[in-house]
Amino acid sequence: MDTAADITAMRRAITLAARGLGSTSPNPVVGCVITDAAGAVVGEGFHQRAGGPHAEVHALRAAGDLARGSTAYVTLEPCNHTGRTGPCAQALLAAGISRVVYAVGDPNPQATGGGDTLRAAGVRVEQGLLADEAEAGNAAWLTSVRLGRPYVLWKYAATLDGRIAAADATSRWITSPEARADVHRLRAEADAVLVGSGTARTDDPQLGVRGIDGATQPLRVVVDTNAAAVKPGARVLDATAPTLIAVAEDAPAGHLPVDAVLRLPRAATGPGLDLDVLLEALHTRGVRSVLVEGGPTLAGAFVAAGKVDKVVGYLAPVLLGAGPAALADAGISTISRALRLDVTETVAIGPDLRVTAVPAAPAPVRKGN
Amino acid sequence: MDTAADITAMRRAITLAARGLGSTSPNPVVGCVITDAAGAVVGEGFHQRAGGPHAEVHALRAAGDLARGSTAYVTLEPCNHTGRTGPCAQALLAAGISRVVYAVGDPNPQATGGGDTLRAAGVRVEQGLLADEAEAGNAAWLTSVRLGRPYVLWKYAATLDGRIAAADATSRWITSPEARADVHRLRAEADAVLVGSGTARTDDPQLGVRGIDGATQPLRVVVDTNAAAVKPGARVLDATAPTLIAVAEDAPAGHLPVDAVLRLPRAATGPGLDLDVLLEALHTRGVRSVLVEGGPTLAGAFVAAGKVDKVVGYLAPVLLGAGPAALADAGISTISRALRLDVTETVAIGPDLRVTAVPAAPAPVRKGN
Repeated sequence: MDTAADITAMRRAITLAARGLGSTSPNPVVGCVITDAAGAVVGEGFHQRAGGPHAEVHALRAAGDLARGSTAYVTLEPCNHTGRTGPCAQALLAAGISRVVYAVGDPNPQATGGGDTLRAAGVRVEQGLLADEAEAGNAAWLTSVRLGRPYVLWKYAATLDGRIAAADATSRWITSPEARADVHRLRAEADAVLVGSGTARTDDPQLGVRGIDGATQPLRVVVDTNAAAVKPGARVLDATAPTLIAVAEDAPAGHLPVDAVLRLPRAATGPGLDLDVLLEALHTRGVRSVLVEGGPTLAGAFVAAGKVDKVVGYLAPVLLGAGPAALADAGISTISRALRLDVTETVAIGPDLRVTAVPAAPAPVRKGN
Repeated sequence: MDTAADITAMRRAITLAARGLGSTSPNPVVGCVITDAAGAVVGEGFHQRAGGPHAEVHALRAAGDLARGSTAYVTLEPCNHTGRTGPCAQALLAAGISRVVYAVGDPNPQATGGGDTLRAAGVRVEQGLLADEAEAGNAAWLTSVRLGRPYVLWKYAATLDGRIAAADATSRWITSPEARADVHRLRAEADAVLVGSGTARTDDPQLGVRGIDGATQPLRVVVDTNAAAVKPGARVLDATAPTLIAVAEDAPAGHLPVDAVLRLPRAATGPGLDLDVLLEALHTRGVRSVLVEGGPTLAGAFVAAGKVDKVVGYLAPVLLGAGPAALADAGISTISRALRLDVTETVAIGPDLRVTAVPAAPAPVRKGN
């Protein structure tokens, strides 16, 4: 049975893991807490970046000799394979850890089996403590392992009546400074940030993370199918972070930096590029999570393709009555085909609301009344 | 100083007052709690309907002889005038109440002065306890006294991307049964329910309150400027509640029941009727609160006229990407003219969100950054 001390330690490990969001890909985020027989924390750590030490190694180093006879709480099953670093299961054994509690089993066939290795060596091993919380914290990575493509989060900012700009296209200050700062956190947690040609043309966004110390800058991706939106000197082409301009195979992209151009097939139907191939190309580059920032047409293409795993909407208490909507051309023409979601969180961000939702599990057909 | 017992009693009075919402117009809602010297409740009551006893009278009747020497907590200053019922200040004196605590002063010049009358007779009188809460509970009536027109609440139901129907106009089940039940509570609390011609034509709504025991049916009002939307046999013309079809002075309304037709001047600019005159006509009929249920054009006209006092949005976790928006033609073409609101409440209603907001107080111009 898990004690209150077990839960406290695992929750701390989950909190630590989250500090790696955005910088560990293609690896998962992992946190580790080591406590001695009296329950005191003697070491903790988290996986900070791919190629660097795993969470367990950081925590074992911090614990030193105090690791012997202690309990290690890890958010993900300790790895069993030698990649760029040695297997954590062996490191835990070598340090004399006597009990390992991990939240989520490793679904990666190359890495799984650490639990069995530890058990075979006589360590007490338990799985499943706070598994839901730990899974939520690793949702992007777990989804990408399961689906073989990056996790896609669509973010939008709109008025209460669903507008992202006024009729004359003005849009500054729809949401608050607090909401805009929160978007930078989303960017920092993502491996790549995506916008479409409309946004590139209208806003000339820089797409970098600002205001977050130590943040890893995400890969910036503009879907510019006809290579007509991003001009030389565009802010997204500055030197602060890598950039890809995804263009159609036949688009005239001579004005763009050669190493920034990603040529992709056009979509089989409708305008735009083949999103499956785009996501595959990003996945191949180690991208495990993508933040789609808009605009409405690009978001609509992702919804239409069934490639949205999470929606974060910033709703400003503002009414306009005219202007473009947050989502367009999602291929839904009648209410029975609507994309139904479950709200997982609603919080105030300054004067605005942030609503988080995920696609609902298919439900039985509702009876009329 | 107000004790915990004072606060408990006043909060109970506020709760009681709310039970009158929708049935007391043109009077306010009022609650009253009487406690003896030991703090025990010996009587309570609320104003149930215009022409019926005031809250204080209900509470005094319940208390009987126990009222002598007791404290009366009232959400609104006891009235000082003889209308359809006698003045409550005199009733409290006659019953031997020794202390009166009321939350909000009566702004009605015909009724105010009860506090002074009681004080002059030697009763301890205190004002202001939980005044904000009591004012919020009486917002519709207080606003109507202050502005000389009914309080206007605009309600809408939309997807997260701001659509009220799909592209093919299908809209059933956008929001949940729980949200639809909540709308019936809003109707029950309102004196009148308003829809425009588009809604009348598309939905043929009945606009009655269903599922709430003892609810007073609101006046049903359709703004059918050209008398072309409401047909003989429309559900809104059934016998369950009174109905007004507001039409232009020159509209051919011979097909409508004579006593249901309200002829009004057309708006000076744009389509539709003069909303000031409409609200004045409703006010004259004793309507103190109006629930505007839509559609987008009517709501836009109210926003454009600056006649929305509160917004209640039911947001379903659904994405459509096409279809009509909740608000249209509000006369706002650029972001600096947007109607800015303050969110006062966000709650889950079944799977949906209910967001309540009120127009923001004018703020100093924000500096760019």
